[in-house]
Amino acid sequence: MFKGLSAFPLTPLLNDDIDEGAFIRLLQRLAAAKVNSLGVLGSTGSYAYLSREQRKRVTAIAKAHAGDIPVMTSIGAVSTAEVLRLAEDAQSAGADALLLPVMSYQPLTDDEVYSLYEDVSAHVSVPICVYDNPRCTHFSFSGSLLSRVAALPQISAIKMPGAPTDAGTIADRVRSMRTRVPERVALGVSADVFAADGLNAGCDVWFSVCGGLFPRTAMAIAEAAARHDQQQVAVLSERLTPLWALFTQHGGGIRVMAAAAALLGLVSPECLPRPLKALSRDDVARVAAVIREAGLE
Amino acid sequence: MFKGLSAFPLTPLLNDDIDEGAFIRLLQRLAAAKVNSLGVLGSTGSYAYLSREQRKRVTAIAKAHAGDIPVMTSIGAVSTAEVLRLAEDAQSAGADALLLPVMSYQPLTDDEVYSLYEDVSAHVSVPICVYDNPRCTHFSFSGSLLSRVAALPQISAIKMPGAPTDAGTIADRVRSMRTRVPERVALGVSADVFAADGLNAGCDVWFSVCGGLFPRTAMAIAEAAARHDQQQVAVLSERLTPLWALFTQHGGGIRVMAAAAALLGLVSPECLPRPLKALSRDDVARVAAVIREAGLE
Repeated sequence: MFKGLSAFPLTPLLNDDIDEGAFIRLLQRLAAAKVNSLGVLGSTGSYAYLSREQRKRVTAIAKAHAGDIPVMTSIGAVSTAEVLRLAEDAQSAGADALLLPVMSYQPLTDDEVYSLYEDVSAHVSVPICVYDNPRCTHFSFSGSLLSRVAALPQISAIKMPGAPTDAGTIADRVRSMRTRVPERVALGVSADVFAADGLNAGCDVWFSVCGGLFPRTAMAIAEAAARHDQQQVAVLSERLTPLWALFTQHGGGIRVMAAAAALLGLVSPECLPRPLKALSRDDVARVAAVIREAGLE
Repeated sequence: MFKGLSAFPLTPLLNDDIDEGAFIRLLQRLAAAKVNSLGVLGSTGSYAYLSREQRKRVTAIAKAHAGDIPVMTSIGAVSTAEVLRLAEDAQSAGADALLLPVMSYQPLTDDEVYSLYEDVSAHVSVPICVYDNPRCTHFSFSGSLLSRVAALPQISAIKMPGAPTDAGTIADRVRSMRTRVPERVALGVSADVFAADGLNAGCDVWFSVCGGLFPRTAMAIAEAAARHDQQQVAVLSERLTPLWALFTQHGGGIRVMAAAAALLGLVSPECLPRPLKALSRDDVARVAAVIREAGLE
């Protein structure tokens, strides 16, 4: 399942609970576009803000509306005990893969992080994707720790973070990572602004925030990458530069995607979990302009 | 309740659940030393790793064994909805005050953080202590945000973080903070290595990790501060330098206090929530030496 476009939708809320109707509208849009896989309850899917019961329900709804598209779901939590409970829940709700970030509170040692993946990989029967997201989790993997973790059973993919750097450096990093992890482990790029460079450098999959709402736009890039049409990947991504700029301006994609989904009439304007706030009216107008000008769909 | 020594005990675990017997032993030790208040479920009390049900139980146990010592309990969580549920639980379990950190996942804006405190202060009937802990929460308060938050109803204290700096700078910071917040708001120092400088600079209360296990040692410092015996505060704290060095070496106090509590026979050696690990045998031996040499009690 770790190839092409993995679309990461919002989990829209209404009065602090899941807005099921809105979530189903987002899922139907992704299913219609035939994305390669779904990543529900990613960072953009607000996993960190939802209760255990809500998270199980989100996975079940996604499975019910994904057709034959495989569904990955995040099982991140601060304590290993809770991660294991979430893994049970996710598997019983039908998740095809588990996304495991290193949520931290006390700063963690490498041995502690390794033990988390070791404990989880010993307890689950579906593939695990290692979620390396220092921006939100405040844990940074070293290359050697990623190598150790990737060698564990069930580890099938790595969701690599973006970094403000040039295409050559990204290509070097992907090449270096490829030598460090088993062949069976897929490499994925996240942080959409780096997707083009990551795909052109040989990443197997794009874990995409933009693709969670604008699947046709993102699929065009993923399909160009599958054809090894590097120039087209770059051209299509270049068109989205104003969107990436909004992501940077607003501390990541979640607030921008929430505004965009509301503009499309798919979710309520206040669909984010408190304390996250909706963008201001002026900022929403800018999002509307970018959707229009970049032809996002 | 925000004066003198506020002792922050561990919440000892056994097989991923609360070790009630061990927790009661810690509470009895603090009650016998007549600490001024208890701060259960602080960072050292592992609030971030425990379920809602476990947290309610910890507060109830603390109230049952604290005698007439007031109990503050942390209600930190990533989502405002969960914070409000935890606040209800804590109040119904008898908490005398609520400790509210800014746990973050998506990086937060100042307005989002203000709205968190605004929502909580409108819903609770007991005092709130603002917990400023960038090391674990990854949110840093600006002075102006702290001023806005401190002006809200129910805000009664600020738990200030330590910073690697000299006594003069700490004194300047306390003086500056005093001018920024209402008179009714107590200022407290945390990060034990800075306690002496903070108390000598006029902080009202010491929120103490060391005091959660070695209350007599910490009370001697707090009592010297209450007598304005600045020299004695400095001398007593200076004796604890090897303990502060262990805190720094092991990423904070929690792993060191867990080892120390096990050495005293109060808790199981594996009392921390996974993925946190117990210190190695060599490191435990060093903790034992420091307890002996510094005469911790």
